[in-house]
Amino acid sequence: MNVVVLGSDGYTGWPLVARLLDHGHRVHGIDHCGAREYRGRSVTPIDEHATRAAIANETLDGTYSYDTGLDVTRYRGLRAALSKHDPDAIVNLAQIPSAPYSMRGPADAWDTHRNNVQGSLNLLWALKELDRTDTHVVQLATMGEYGTPEAGIPEGFLPDGRPAPKEPGSFYHASKVATTVNTIFAARAWGLPVTECYQGIVYGVHTDATDRDPALRTRFDADATWGTVLNRFTAQAAVGHPLTVYGEGGQCRAMLSLQDCVRCIHLLLENPPEGYRAVNQFDGAYRVREVADMVADETGADVTTVENPRVEDDSAHAFDPERGVLDELGYAPERSIREELRRTYATVCEHRERIDTDSLSPRTVWADA
Amino acid sequence: MNVVVLGSDGYTGWPLVARLLDHGHRVHGIDHCGAREYRGRSVTPIDEHATRAAIANETLDGTYSYDTGLDVTRYRGLRAALSKHDPDAIVNLAQIPSAPYSMRGPADAWDTHRNNVQGSLNLLWALKELDRTDTHVVQLATMGEYGTPEAGIPEGFLPDGRPAPKEPGSFYHASKVATTVNTIFAARAWGLPVTECYQGIVYGVHTDATDRDPALRTRFDADATWGTVLNRFTAQAAVGHPLTVYGEGGQCRAMLSLQDCVRCIHLLLENPPEGYRAVNQFDGAYRVREVADMVADETGADVTTVENPRVEDDSAHAFDPERGVLDELGYAPERSIREELRRTYATVCEHRERIDTDSLSPRTVWADA
Repeated sequence: MNVVVLGSDGYTGWPLVARLLDHGHRVHGIDHCGAREYRGRSVTPIDEHATRAAIANETLDGTYSYDTGLDVTRYRGLRAALSKHDPDAIVNLAQIPSAPYSMRGPADAWDTHRNNVQGSLNLLWALKELDRTDTHVVQLATMGEYGTPEAGIPEGFLPDGRPAPKEPGSFYHASKVATTVNTIFAARAWGLPVTECYQGIVYGVHTDATDRDPALRTRFDADATWGTVLNRFTAQAAVGHPLTVYGEGGQCRAMLSLQDCVRCIHLLLENPPEGYRAVNQFDGAYRVREVADMVADETGADVTTVENPRVEDDSAHAFDPERGVLDELGYAPERSIREELRRTYATVCEHRERIDTDSLSPRTVWADA
Repeated sequence: MNVVVLGSDGYTGWPLVARLLDHGHRVHGIDHCGAREYRGRSVTPIDEHATRAAIANETLDGTYSYDTGLDVTRYRGLRAALSKHDPDAIVNLAQIPSAPYSMRGPADAWDTHRNNVQGSLNLLWALKELDRTDTHVVQLATMGEYGTPEAGIPEGFLPDGRPAPKEPGSFYHASKVATTVNTIFAARAWGLPVTECYQGIVYGVHTDATDRDPALRTRFDADATWGTVLNRFTAQAAVGHPLTVYGEGGQCRAMLSLQDCVRCIHLLLENPPEGYRAVNQFDGAYRVREVADMVADETGADVTTVENPRVEDDSAHAFDPERGVLDELGYAPERSIREELRRTYATVCEHRERIDTDSLSPRTVWADA
């Protein structure tokens, strides 16, 4: 396969590049590497993209080329790149993925929305204008779009074929709903084969491919703005900070390991759909309190409760998501959450001096008390 | 009431201003008057905003002030204006409302999305930051967000409380879904009283208030990009052009007269909700072929069929929208569609020399054949 990855320098983007190379594919990465600027320092030391790229080309089977000068929200540049590389498939990971960032204020809310929606819209239009509407688009949506309905979470659509109701809990999640809405429309109007992965919260830092060389390691964020829950807990444990559960901790979330994330995308790339396909992508569902207890059990950390900075249901609410497509394709989780948290914790401990302890507790509140 | 109207120079915005003034309210209008530039000439001659404003202040009871230098997508300017005028309610009509415009290409698709979503997002954040989350926001959504589901169209929410599934048929309609999603989230997170009007297609040009002086008349668009279906048909009839029905003409759409549009908004302003309120706002539902036949019957025009430039179901599909809130508030349509089309046609005929005949047929196609 010849695959273009948008967001190839990111937490999930780089391991996906590595995995595809490891399986002999040709990959072109596009990323303006902005996350290196606007997020804090990665807990794991990471090389410049050019260095990683050289090592990947030496170490792994496939061929990697890249463009770190292109922002996917610039339409003409994106269209020119797609025209030049003429990929079989494009994976869009060029997203700003933080709920707290989107709630900091009007500028950051709009920055999130603009980046996420405009990038995706540009991609859809570029394929239309290039007359390449047979190109498989794999786009990352989030399980958070569905909210936590009593009725359970279908896989993209209700039994009668209408799109599932969406109840996002932040402007970030709302931006992903907007992207989903545009994408379903465009896929139907233009006949595009699109896989939209409604992905759970990703955790961990190890994957088979990035583990082939220490220099291939991906970035790892642990702070309250960019770090996802399990990752943040391992960092708190590593610096002797109690694990901060928001509210009652009954929030139930679909999750999956980084290894399973890139494996699922790879599997979906190998099995493109006819038209639009919604995929609920996760290995299991866990309550936040349960994740904290697991991390505490493995690390000896204390668990504490802080006032929930978000407006969300943190009681032990119903949570029953479907997972059909991946199961039909033969997916079974490769990593258990406990095994993965152990390996993550070990790696985070190695770099514990790089953790900014002050950044681990929430500073952005959804609404004034 | 002290009301701020965003989009006060527009087709529905100006008649709303006039109606509120006619009922003695204080109104501040905000509009950069961009529609005067990027649309074609209005079929009805309209004065500069300053001239209309002066005549409105002379003729009608309330007090009108305005700002034609402010674009609602500029956050700081909008927040400053809201802080200064401290309204009881804000009506957001500052939207780019054209499906064909949004389908012309990537730039216009994004222009539509950016304007519609960013303006609304700015408004929500401004009220949050100004600590004025008790201000009633009335925002125009569209019945087109729902698509045309077999199961019928609920009023905003499914019986179990989840937001109704959305199936927009253009990037314009998708931008309105994105706005709705942001607004429901913000209303819930911040406790804002919001009325979102899922409005049908508006037709006609006369309202009680704007009819008090010829200089108060609102703009009227008849071309294939900006003119709504009944309005476009009356213009085609006025210049002796056959009425162009897209495809079979079975498309069923909720509609309402301009008079009923501003009356409904007025009624909703007088009856603010506690939290988020979804309102399906229309006087009736009509198939496109039926509207064409009605216009033909009144004007003697021919009806012709053109290839449908849109990707939509133009067969005689199911269409069954709920209308609960307005009925409970005592709304009954004030104008019949036939009476209104007669008056519209008479006015359009007066100005038929201002109609650009070449603009009446569709030039934007949703997808290549």
